[in-house]
Amino acid sequence: MNVQPRLSRLASIDANRFLLCPRLDDIRWLTGFTGSTASLLVDRHRGVAHLFVDSRYVERARHEIAVSNAQVEIHLVESGSSIAALIGDVVQQNSVIVDPQHITVAQFNSYQEKFSIHTETSPCDELRRVKDENEIDLIARAASIADEALASLLHDGLCGRTEREIAQHLDHLMRVGGADDVGFDTIVATGANAARPHHEPSNAVVEDGHCVIIDFGAEIDGYRSDMTRTIRVGSVSHELESMFEIVREAQQCGVDAVTNGVVGSRVDAAVRAVFAREGVEHEFIHGTGHGIGLYIHEPPILSPRCEAVLQVNEVVTVEPGLYRKGVGGVRIEDQVVVTGTGCRILTLSPKELSCPRSPRTI
Amino acid sequence: MNVQPRLSRLASIDANRFLLCPRLDDIRWLTGFTGSTASLLVDRHRGVAHLFVDSRYVERARHEIAVSNAQVEIHLVESGSSIAALIGDVVQQNSVIVDPQHITVAQFNSYQEKFSIHTETSPCDELRRVKDENEIDLIARAASIADEALASLLHDGLCGRTEREIAQHLDHLMRVGGADDVGFDTIVATGANAARPHHEPSNAVVEDGHCVIIDFGAEIDGYRSDMTRTIRVGSVSHELESMFEIVREAQQCGVDAVTNGVVGSRVDAAVRAVFAREGVEHEFIHGTGHGIGLYIHEPPILSPRCEAVLQVNEVVTVEPGLYRKGVGGVRIEDQVVVTGTGCRILTLSPKELSCPRSPRTI
Repeated sequence: MNVQPRLSRLASIDANRFLLCPRLDDIRWLTGFTGSTASLLVDRHRGVAHLFVDSRYVERARHEIAVSNAQVEIHLVESGSSIAALIGDVVQQNSVIVDPQHITVAQFNSYQEKFSIHTETSPCDELRRVKDENEIDLIARAASIADEALASLLHDGLCGRTEREIAQHLDHLMRVGGADDVGFDTIVATGANAARPHHEPSNAVVEDGHCVIIDFGAEIDGYRSDMTRTIRVGSVSHELESMFEIVREAQQCGVDAVTNGVVGSRVDAAVRAVFAREGVEHEFIHGTGHGIGLYIHEPPILSPRCEAVLQVNEVVTVEPGLYRKGVGGVRIEDQVVVTGTGCRILTLSPKELSCPRSPRTI
Repeated sequence: MNVQPRLSRLASIDANRFLLCPRLDDIRWLTGFTGSTASLLVDRHRGVAHLFVDSRYVERARHEIAVSNAQVEIHLVESGSSIAALIGDVVQQNSVIVDPQHITVAQFNSYQEKFSIHTETSPCDELRRVKDENEIDLIARAASIADEALASLLHDGLCGRTEREIAQHLDHLMRVGGADDVGFDTIVATGANAARPHHEPSNAVVEDGHCVIIDFGAEIDGYRSDMTRTIRVGSVSHELESMFEIVREAQQCGVDAVTNGVVGSRVDAAVRAVFAREGVEHEFIHGTGHGIGLYIHEPPILSPRCEAVLQVNEVVTVEPGLYRKGVGGVRIEDQVVVTGTGCRILTLSPKELSCPRSPRTI
C-alpha cells in the first residue's frame, strides 16, 4: 500500500496551508494509521502530515506509517498535556482550517485559545469519492465474501430460524470467510418487520410466506461491502410478489442509470420513476444509494437533491425498497463501481432468491 | 425495563428548561431508542423528551419507547427538512443548552440560526455513572459471557495460532455464548507485540515463551464488559515472569483501593506505588481504569488527575499493565462494582493463566 499520492493530492489543492483532519477515517486514508484516538494536521506547503497520538498508539503509528509509505511526523501527546498546544507549536502564526462537521464545539474552542483556526468544508470527502485500484480491490473482495456467506447461509434455509440467529450466522460466515469484521450491523427483517428499513434483528421467526430482507456487508482493511437481498420464503402473497417485481425493476433501472458524468439525482429519479408509475412512490422512504469505502455512508447520497456528478472509480450502492406497514418490505441492493460506459457490479449474488417453507434437513 | 426514572432524575436537576442530547448513548439511556441517527430534546418543566428521527426509524422508535416506558414524543424529520426548525418549533423563545463535547460546530451553527442555544456541560455523564439494578445485571451477564468464552478458548490452547485467529475465535465464542455483539475490538497481542497496549490482532503466531495479552468483552442490550488476562505460554523468561508478578500485585492493590467515597486518583496511586517501588513506573503508559456501561470508556478515568469520588453502584475497570519494548507486555484487568465497603468483582476468570507450549490435540 502506498498512501503518499493521497497526501500529495490533498497538498496540491488550492487551500489554506494547514488543514486539520480530526476524523479517524480521513486519518486512516491519508496515513494508514488505524488507532481509535488521533488528530492529523496536514502541512500543504511541505507536503507532510503531523500525526498526534497518545502513548498507547506511538508504536502502532510508527509501524503503520512505515507500511503505508506516507510522509508523516508522529507527535506524542503526553498524558495531561494539550494537543492544542502541540498543534500551535507546529503552525506558529499560521492559521488552520477544519471542517465544521468534523470538530466539536469544545475542541474548536480549546484550539482557538492556542492558534488561529476557522472552519471550511474539508476536501477529503471529495478526494475520497474516487477510489484507487487497491481500494476497489479491497471493496470487491469484501463484496465477494458477503456473496459467498449469503450462498452458504441460504444453503441451510431460513424458515423456522429467528432474525437474530440468521444475522449471527451470516456474520460468522463472513468472518470465517476472510472478513476482518462485518461492515456494519447486519439487518435481518422478516414478515411485517421488513416494513422497517432499519429493523434490528429480533427473536421473530421466519415463516412460510415471509419476505426476509437481509442487508449486510463485510469489512477488509477498513473497506466495506454493502448488499441487500430479499428472500421469499415458501409461497408468498401476490401482494409481496408484486412489490418484489417492482423493486426488482426499479433496482435494475437504477443500476442502468449509473455511469461516468451522470448527476446523482438522475440515478435516484430512474428508480423513483418505476415506483411512481406503479403508484407506490410514497412507500420508498429512503435514498436510492450512497458512496461507500472506509465509511459505510460516504458522499454522494443518491437522492432527489443529489447534485454530485458520478466519476469513474467511484463506488456507490443502488438500493431501492418498498415498505408497507403490516405487510412487509422488499429491498434489493448492489454495490457498483462507476466506469466510463456504465458500471461494474461488485455484488454477484442472484436477485431472485427464495427458500423452502420448511427447514432444510442438514 | 423502565427508563422513566432516568428522565425524571435529569428533569429534577437544576438546569436550563431545555437540554439538547445529541449523543446516541444518552438517547438510548434516556429513552431506550437504539437507532443510529436521532436527536433528543429534554423539556425539564414538562418532564418529557422530544425524539427527532427520520422516516427509517419512526417505527422502531415507537416500538422501543413503548418497551422502555419513557415519556417521549416522537417527531418525524422529513427528508430534506431541517431538524433545527423542528426543535425551534418546540422551544419557541426559550433557550437550549447542549454539551460542547457532544455537538459539532456545523450543527451548533445551524441550530443557532433557528433558536437560542448555548453550551454547558451535560449532566448525563454524571447521572450515568451510577448504574441501576438492571444495568448492573446486564454488565454482570456480559462479564460472565466473557469469562466463559475465555475458558473455552484456553481449553483449545493458544500456541501455534495467530493473534487474529484467536481474536476471531474468542469473538465467536462470546456471540454463541449469548452476547449481542463484542463490547469493543478484541485485542490479542503476543510476544513483542504485547509491548503495544492497543495492538491490533495480526498474523503473528503465539510461540513458546510468549506472554499473550487478551483484552476483550461482550455486549448485551448495549451494556459492555471489559476484561484483560495475560496468558503465559510454555516457559516464559524470568523477566516476563517478574513483570507478571508486579502487575498481578499492582492490580490487586488497585482493586483493594476501590470503595465508596474514594477519590479516583487514589486507586491510580495504589497501582502506581507498586510500579514505583519496582522502578518500572515509566513502563505503565496508560490510566488505571475507567467507568463503563453503554459506552466502553465512561467517566471517571482513573488516572493521577482523577478528582471524581467513587460512588456505590458505579462500575469501573482496574487494569494496570507494563510494556517493555522488544520484550513484551503484561496487563490484568477486572471490572468491579463499587459497594459501601469495597467492591464486587464481576470478572471471575483466574488471573494466573498459562497454556502449554504445544497445541492441544483436539
